[in-house]
Amino acid sequence: MAIKKVGSQTVKFANPPSIISSGTIVGPKEGQGPLKDYFDMILTDDTYGEKSWEKAECKMFQDSVNLALKKASLNISDIDYLIGGDLLNQIITSSFAARQFNVPTFGLYGACSTMAEGLSIASMLIDGGFADHIVVTTSSHFSTAERQYRFPLEQGVQRPFTSQWTVTGSGSSLLSSNGTGPYITHVTTGKVVDLGMKDANNMGAAMAPAAADTILTHFNDTGFTIDDYDLIITGDMARVGKSILMELLRKEGMNIENKYKDCGIEIYDESQDVHSGGSGAGCSAVVLNGWLLQQIKSGIYNRVLFIATGALLSPTSTQQGESIPGIAHAVTISNYA
Amino acid sequence: MAIKKVGSQTVKFANPPSIISSGTIVGPKEGQGPLKDYFDMILTDDTYGEKSWEKAECKMFQDSVNLALKKASLNISDIDYLIGGDLLNQIITSSFAARQFNVPTFGLYGACSTMAEGLSIASMLIDGGFADHIVVTTSSHFSTAERQYRFPLEQGVQRPFTSQWTVTGSGSSLLSSNGTGPYITHVTTGKVVDLGMKDANNMGAAMAPAAADTILTHFNDTGFTIDDYDLIITGDMARVGKSILMELLRKEGMNIENKYKDCGIEIYDESQDVHSGGSGAGCSAVVLNGWLLQQIKSGIYNRVLFIATGALLSPTSTQQGESIPGIAHAVTISNYA
Repeated sequence: MAIKKVGSQTVKFANPPSIISSGTIVGPKEGQGPLKDYFDMILTDDTYGEKSWEKAECKMFQDSVNLALKKASLNISDIDYLIGGDLLNQIITSSFAARQFNVPTFGLYGACSTMAEGLSIASMLIDGGFADHIVVTTSSHFSTAERQYRFPLEQGVQRPFTSQWTVTGSGSSLLSSNGTGPYITHVTTGKVVDLGMKDANNMGAAMAPAAADTILTHFNDTGFTIDDYDLIITGDMARVGKSILMELLRKEGMNIENKYKDCGIEIYDESQDVHSGGSGAGCSAVVLNGWLLQQIKSGIYNRVLFIATGALLSPTSTQQGESIPGIAHAVTISNYA
Repeated sequence: MAIKKVGSQTVKFANPPSIISSGTIVGPKEGQGPLKDYFDMILTDDTYGEKSWEKAECKMFQDSVNLALKKASLNISDIDYLIGGDLLNQIITSSFAARQFNVPTFGLYGACSTMAEGLSIASMLIDGGFADHIVVTTSSHFSTAERQYRFPLEQGVQRPFTSQWTVTGSGSSLLSSNGTGPYITHVTTGKVVDLGMKDANNMGAAMAPAAADTILTHFNDTGFTIDDYDLIITGDMARVGKSILMELLRKEGMNIENKYKDCGIEIYDESQDVHSGGSGAGCSAVVLNGWLLQQIKSGIYNRVLFIATGALLSPTSTQQGESIPGIAHAVTISNYA
């Protein structure tokens, strides 16, 4: 077994990469939420002056990359790889955004787990000696997701209370082999888990078993205890998924309640009528790269387990009666290397 | 700059991983083509006994993984990561197939470039010390792709002569840190290139500039010459793309004609009425893991540059008047480490 492997699904970095800068841009609704002061840019119009929501999402993706580069005083030519993904069919947001950047590009699809998937692969590429600088970017957009996955917005379909609200936003992390933290010290890569949930309006429930599996594996692989972390934060379990996840972990003897938050709950106020909470590949990306990294840098949380979760369904799989597989990837972000 | 980086876009492995086994399964049409003797399994019915083509593609993906494992006398528990992708929205083939495997999974989307993207990331993870065994798998299916990207098959739309035929097939490569070759010695990661082609029925033309860019960069980064290779093989340029690619390279002073093949041309006979040739994420996967690896092992080709190319369009991007970005990733496969 390779020397950097810890347990069955976790790797520990010999020279942990640093997140040296980040960029975030969000839509108007996210810009009215409790984390509004932590985002770099807030759109006043979710078309962002473009002719389609898809083009607007693409522009947001580009801007979040550029914001991260600017804050680090780097140019795109300093970047070894751009690693990104989004929720649209054929990840057109990422691919069309990457046209503007003259840089080697890896496209990912992990649904809402993509930010953690990208951070995992990027960290391995840097620690492995293949790159000094990598930008990891994901995005989502309420209006592009809604019409692709569900119904035309004009139809005004009523949303059940278990449903989540896709975050309009894009977040980028700029990772470097040479930095002073926050460091990515461990990653635990998830398996695809499917317990048979079929309700596409209740993705928190579909993703909770995958999140529980990855969290339990992470602690088992590393030997860490809850006390080793100041915060355990999932990507977009939202309220329904959060309680199921806590219950699943409790059954395994693990109580995370006092240290647990979810990006999909943090990003909106309950008054914003988002039902269970936020979701989308952009949700964990903007919360991590906006609010969370600033909390880590200021020492409020010194060591965080960031777990992004994905529901791997498609409208076609749902129409064919399939259940919803979930996946979760965990990344340890710490002020200590 | 990291020590393993060679030039701007290429990495050279310190301990090149080996492709220790492979698995291939193809549909009836591919099983009548010139490479039929090199595939592990040939379906007589492209539904593979399933209720939908999507479920059939998923079963093919699983089978190709299992075939590769079996030939290496390994179990899925010996595998550190499954890395895969396909052409379907939200890569449901890969995600639903991965449910059956209890293994950490990374989902990719690189359209028809995904096999080379997966081999690139897998090789970096192994050489970086994070894994000993990784399976890389991609798939495509004529009938799932046709109805998703183009028209219902029942409609019987006439295909222009520049169009390509999506290969029904899945191919897996099993990479190991400990093998005796064929080795992956170098990878050159492509940039997204878009010269403004808008014809979704002529993807070879859309992908040729990306292929040319990656090939030129590979030779520039490594200092290799054409003489260092016995074969240069692209994934699915097909006939139209092949001539454009050769012309683009000729303009840059590079003549690859005597050493150049394309998987999309090799897989079908001209009499099979596939117009420009084969395409799809499964095309390069089954040709590499079927015919090509056997040619390398038998010493017919000792050193091969394998370039898989992807057209990063979606029906939505085409409807919105966008052009077609392309990407190409190159992998050096050699009998010498």
